[in-house]
Amino acid sequence: MTKKVASRANAISPFHVMDILSQAKQLEAAGQNIIHMEVGEPDFDTPQPIIEAGMHALKQGKTHYTPACGLPELREAIADWYEQQYEVKVNAERIIVTPGASGALLLVMGALLEKQKQVLLADPGYPCNKHFARFVEGRVTSIPVDANNQYQLTAQHIEQYWDDNTAMALVASPSNPTGTVLTQPDLKELAAAVASKSGHLVVDEIYHGLTYDGFHAPTALSVSDQVFVVNSFSKFFGMTGWRLGWLVVPEGYTEVMDKLAQNLFLAPMTMSQYAALAAFQPNTLAILEQRRQAFERRRNTLLPLLKDIGFSIPITPQGAFYLYADCSVLLNEQIPDSMALSRYLLNQAGVAITPGLDFGHHQAESHCRFAYTRDESLLIDAAERIQRVMIG
Amino acid sequence: MTKKVASRANAISPFHVMDILSQAKQLEAAGQNIIHMEVGEPDFDTPQPIIEAGMHALKQGKTHYTPACGLPELREAIADWYEQQYEVKVNAERIIVTPGASGALLLVMGALLEKQKQVLLADPGYPCNKHFARFVEGRVTSIPVDANNQYQLTAQHIEQYWDDNTAMALVASPSNPTGTVLTQPDLKELAAAVASKSGHLVVDEIYHGLTYDGFHAPTALSVSDQVFVVNSFSKFFGMTGWRLGWLVVPEGYTEVMDKLAQNLFLAPMTMSQYAALAAFQPNTLAILEQRRQAFERRRNTLLPLLKDIGFSIPITPQGAFYLYADCSVLLNEQIPDSMALSRYLLNQAGVAITPGLDFGHHQAESHCRFAYTRDESLLIDAAERIQRVMIG
Repeated sequence: MTKKVASRANAISPFHVMDILSQAKQLEAAGQNIIHMEVGEPDFDTPQPIIEAGMHALKQGKTHYTPACGLPELREAIADWYEQQYEVKVNAERIIVTPGASGALLLVMGALLEKQKQVLLADPGYPCNKHFARFVEGRVTSIPVDANNQYQLTAQHIEQYWDDNTAMALVASPSNPTGTVLTQPDLKELAAAVASKSGHLVVDEIYHGLTYDGFHAPTALSVSDQVFVVNSFSKFFGMTGWRLGWLVVPEGYTEVMDKLAQNLFLAPMTMSQYAALAAFQPNTLAILEQRRQAFERRRNTLLPLLKDIGFSIPITPQGAFYLYADCSVLLNEQIPDSMALSRYLLNQAGVAITPGLDFGHHQAESHCRFAYTRDESLLIDAAERIQRVMIG
Repeated sequence: MTKKVASRANAISPFHVMDILSQAKQLEAAGQNIIHMEVGEPDFDTPQPIIEAGMHALKQGKTHYTPACGLPELREAIADWYEQQYEVKVNAERIIVTPGASGALLLVMGALLEKQKQVLLADPGYPCNKHFARFVEGRVTSIPVDANNQYQLTAQHIEQYWDDNTAMALVASPSNPTGTVLTQPDLKELAAAVASKSGHLVVDEIYHGLTYDGFHAPTALSVSDQVFVVNSFSKFFGMTGWRLGWLVVPEGYTEVMDKLAQNLFLAPMTMSQYAALAAFQPNTLAILEQRRQAFERRRNTLLPLLKDIGFSIPITPQGAFYLYADCSVLLNEQIPDSMALSRYLLNQAGVAITPGLDFGHHQAESHCRFAYTRDESLLIDAAERIQRVMIG
């Protein structure tokens, strides 16, 4: 029987890594050991002080709805975080707490992207972005980026690709899948370029806090109060399963976001919000700093091992927990592209990675993503396994 | 400065009760006592066994993502619930766990409602439904319903209003704001009528379990395996702040919902899902039965008191926790409509209710909604206060 679904649902493609994942499950069920490097989620549990704050909230019966934009005290705490971490003053009224960054992206696309109008996105980039746009009947202009522009949109791209049908541009810093970071001058130029078009700039900062080599990613809020910033408690704060993020909007946009949030979500999860209040405490931040250092060590361990195998990683990523690798030299007639390579590595080496196709089309066949969300010893093991099956 | 937002965002109106709420807050800040009868949320905290299951999950470090469609064991538990409660067999594969019924409604609208195509909705009805449709660039045909048709869409309505641009019909049983319930024959006729149009029928069953007079609302799944059913842990199970609901789809629709859920939500909240496993335990169900009885007593107390004041409630609602009352006889030149009455009762009597305008346009000026989500003594107090200011 043919299923009758809306064309937007047909247009949204499933993640290619889901194929890899379901095959991995079968192999694991058959007793094979798989090293998972496809997972965009920290392997650490949520820090204990946050868990305890969550349990405390439950004990106190914090089980009812909160306001649609979130607990006032959490919005204040996030505002304080901007002051403490970035020396940027943000009125708490401008902060909308959302069900994950996913909720923030849905809100911002729904509020700003007119149907048929276009959003400029980097290719490669986070795969859901184009699907959020499609979900609200907007359109996407995918702009190919590569190592020459740090895998990021630039002011020049805005000039080149913006037309009368463009409404917004969305960038991510640090980026998924490439881990590259926009500097303050980059952000300033981007914000100015988008402002000159009277458009909206949305900056995804969900990997903020996870930066290395003594580098701190600047927030786009430090260059303009007219940008929209998406952030999350998932990655740096280690709260993936709690589904909590936030959106920072320019003055005057709170009301429209509140209205949409009331209708789309009613409210973010209550206990997660109380728990998140503990995310900014010194004892939590100390744990998070240890984890950040662990991620940095992992990056420093994995990167040369992959290069030794033949993967090309022209830019050492300064953030997130991904390596986006060019696998061209490893391809051949039997393994013609990165999807085939992902399957091959899973079956032959027991290593699961994400094929480039999940992040776009530009050079996707020759790229794949390694997540270093596993213990260093596992990363070394994975590299040895890959080495063995690729080179012998 | 004019804010640039998408037309869908402008088209979605805020809830009128928000005006009442913000005024109520001001009055409360000034020391006045307000009885809140506008709140669509049980006043009871979540049952203790559910809270304990949530705390246990946190202790065990259940803080990571789950599959996008939810924990397999929760999907199984919900399937078991249908068998136990309704004697209906539903394959667990057909159950999609969502971030609240809100998430389920967004999924089902996004998956099924083509842009520009129409969904048939009862007026009065749950206000967010039309906004979900608008959010994905669909359209709404609001069908006026009244006491003559139990405030519900009928097969005759489907015949009368369905045209080439119609894709789906959405009904709710028990309904918000009217509390009326669709019988099995009603559902059967509706399902047949929509099937004859090759359309989709979506049934919102989020108030299931909260039914009175020995009556049990039948699930639409008992009359057809081709309907889409939305449900929630919020109302009957008392888990509003946990943001957890589910969607039951016909065979063959799981894949498209999974794909959309991956993109829109990533996954429902993890700890809420583990906690919800305790919702179906006998000790929890015993607590919920006591609460159901409390709601029934409240309905039985409030209904005659409102009638004595002059409110007309032609149908005694069999479910939910709302009385939808015609206030025509109480209106006059100073209080010309239900919005004015809501303001008047708030200011003069310290009682907050919801004006009919939040549920549609049909006879909205002469109707308002009372939620009996407050203790019986408060309901009596509220009725006395209203009596005093309206009649003297």
